[in-house]
Amino acid sequence: MNYVAIMAGGVGSRFWPSSRENLPKQFLDIMGTGKSLLQMTFERAANLVPNDHIFILTHAKYLDLVLEQLPDMDASRVLLEPSRNNTAPCIAYLGLKLRSLDPEANFAVLPSDHLIMKEDVFEERMRRAFAFTAANEAIVTLGIQPVRPDTGYGYIKFDNEIAPEIHPVERFVEKPNLATAKEYVTDGGYLWNAGIFVWKATTLLAGLETNAAEVLEVLNPGLPFFNTDREQAFINTAYPRTPNISIDYALLEHAKNVFTIPADMGWSDLGTWASLYAESVADENGNVVVGAEQQLYDVQDCLIRTKTGKLVVIKDLHNYIIVDTDDVLLIHPKHKEQEIKAVTADVKSGWNETFL
Amino acid sequence: MNYVAIMAGGVGSRFWPSSRENLPKQFLDIMGTGKSLLQMTFERAANLVPNDHIFILTHAKYLDLVLEQLPDMDASRVLLEPSRNNTAPCIAYLGLKLRSLDPEANFAVLPSDHLIMKEDVFEERMRRAFAFTAANEAIVTLGIQPVRPDTGYGYIKFDNEIAPEIHPVERFVEKPNLATAKEYVTDGGYLWNAGIFVWKATTLLAGLETNAAEVLEVLNPGLPFFNTDREQAFINTAYPRTPNISIDYALLEHAKNVFTIPADMGWSDLGTWASLYAESVADENGNVVVGAEQQLYDVQDCLIRTKTGKLVVIKDLHNYIIVDTDDVLLIHPKHKEQEIKAVTADVKSGWNETFL
Repeated sequence: MNYVAIMAGGVGSRFWPSSRENLPKQFLDIMGTGKSLLQMTFERAANLVPNDHIFILTHAKYLDLVLEQLPDMDASRVLLEPSRNNTAPCIAYLGLKLRSLDPEANFAVLPSDHLIMKEDVFEERMRRAFAFTAANEAIVTLGIQPVRPDTGYGYIKFDNEIAPEIHPVERFVEKPNLATAKEYVTDGGYLWNAGIFVWKATTLLAGLETNAAEVLEVLNPGLPFFNTDREQAFINTAYPRTPNISIDYALLEHAKNVFTIPADMGWSDLGTWASLYAESVADENGNVVVGAEQQLYDVQDCLIRTKTGKLVVIKDLHNYIIVDTDDVLLIHPKHKEQEIKAVTADVKSGWNETFL
Repeated sequence: MNYVAIMAGGVGSRFWPSSRENLPKQFLDIMGTGKSLLQMTFERAANLVPNDHIFILTHAKYLDLVLEQLPDMDASRVLLEPSRNNTAPCIAYLGLKLRSLDPEANFAVLPSDHLIMKEDVFEERMRRAFAFTAANEAIVTLGIQPVRPDTGYGYIKFDNEIAPEIHPVERFVEKPNLATAKEYVTDGGYLWNAGIFVWKATTLLAGLETNAAEVLEVLNPGLPFFNTDREQAFINTAYPRTPNISIDYALLEHAKNVFTIPADMGWSDLGTWASLYAESVADENGNVVVGAEQQLYDVQDCLIRTKTGKLVVIKDLHNYIIVDTDDVLLIHPKHKEQEIKAVTADVKSGWNETFL
């Protein structure tokens, strides 16, 4: 049977001040659609598998938020990390739990905080991936055609297809420098690694056994407890002792049975306010306004985000990000938005962390 | 006996969005001192007369606000206008009520929404005025030395003093044009009319009888009811029928017994955000910040006002007014602040008056 696991434990601080430690990006209605990124991800998952085959993996502190945003989700299908140990341990935990539930479990891992605009393409590619991993001891990752030499993503070098849309992965490349990224984009033989993986639980666990046994060593003693009322107690004790490594580093970069399916699906990881602006439809003055009632005079190319119904009156402002929350107001040049990270660092090092 | 009446019925829309129809300027802690302008005015009055000799004149809708901000004020000393008919009717009402209470009543009228920084000078000048009007059938107004050719004020042309600091007023001049205002400032024989008047009730009423009998005609029938439980019912019926005229036009410009006392008392009527900025102490970057916790990068000459404790993070902004309230965010060039009035007109003519 097919399952989908949604990874919803990230802290997503780059949308500060809208995102907070207690309200990360995936829980925000970042596009102003009336749904959070998590809710949109859940709906995509529900088009692929029955609701009760959807699992959420998150940090324990976000359980209430998850259940509040996803009323169809049963708490038994929300896996709670007691600590943040990167992606390899939590995917290993998922694999063990799902295999124990269903030895034939074939499952996808989806980030909860990405934007996918062509949902029909996503669905078709995912069905293709599920079919391939069900029939083969294969790890499949969806690959995104690079549209710019982004140095913030890992890249996938792929070979010629061995089945329709199925390409063996030649190798994974960690975040490149700009010159290398430009080569990759020109080359045409590279895709972005979007963190969307499909595999059988048995395939995943065999790969981890070979390439990252130290992760399984900590979690394997839990086998008698998974899917029992002692699961959480075991996880609370064992999980923090797992090594802090990513699934890319632990498995993908080493495994020989990795394939990619190129997916031109209108994907964005919405990494920053500027990328949110870029993915949004601007009005005739180039402004993207979410939440606010607007009364703008000579305002251009701005991203304006407030709580619903707040009146924003601005005159003479070009190319700024304006984000207003109940306790923080941010006004920042859009083209300097990488500096917002430094700003939040200043908040942190300063007198007050309650704003994070 | 001496009395002070504080005029607190204005709508004060020029500090929008901080000021609202339901929360005019006089009720705001506009300087960030922890006290509203009304509260500061009350404290100045309490230095001149006993608390129970202080009266407030306001619009009926602000009664709760007045009593909330002035816990020492008894509701019986808050006079409620059922309609806005400018200053002559409400000062006439005050005069009638005070004379009926105390035939010798000698009283001052103070606007509730001005800033006076040199309180010792104010107090000295007021005592001088009270003494002079107690002994003479005189109308006294405090005059402010003009510091710029402001076209928003009336001017007082004064003669040589007839007693220490007491100058007969030669004439009142309505708001002049810029060229005339410049002449007045250069001339040295002119003062700004700050709307602070002192007179005996009998002197005031005699002046009104001569110069504006139409106001008294409407209110005189209330004489049996003032200071009884039928006062408000009478006022509610009669007051709206009084003519809508200012005390300057009704009395000051015509009376022959008007005197002025020049008062260099750090006065400002805080008419606009820019004048508030001008009266405030800016930090080393020229910023005036009220309410907000600030984290500013390359921000200069800005006025920033938020609710207490809100974190404001701004980068690269010079010479702006930034006012954030619960339901409105205003970002406006400071040197164009006369246009804010047009902005509020747009709000009014638009889809939503709830923001005013």
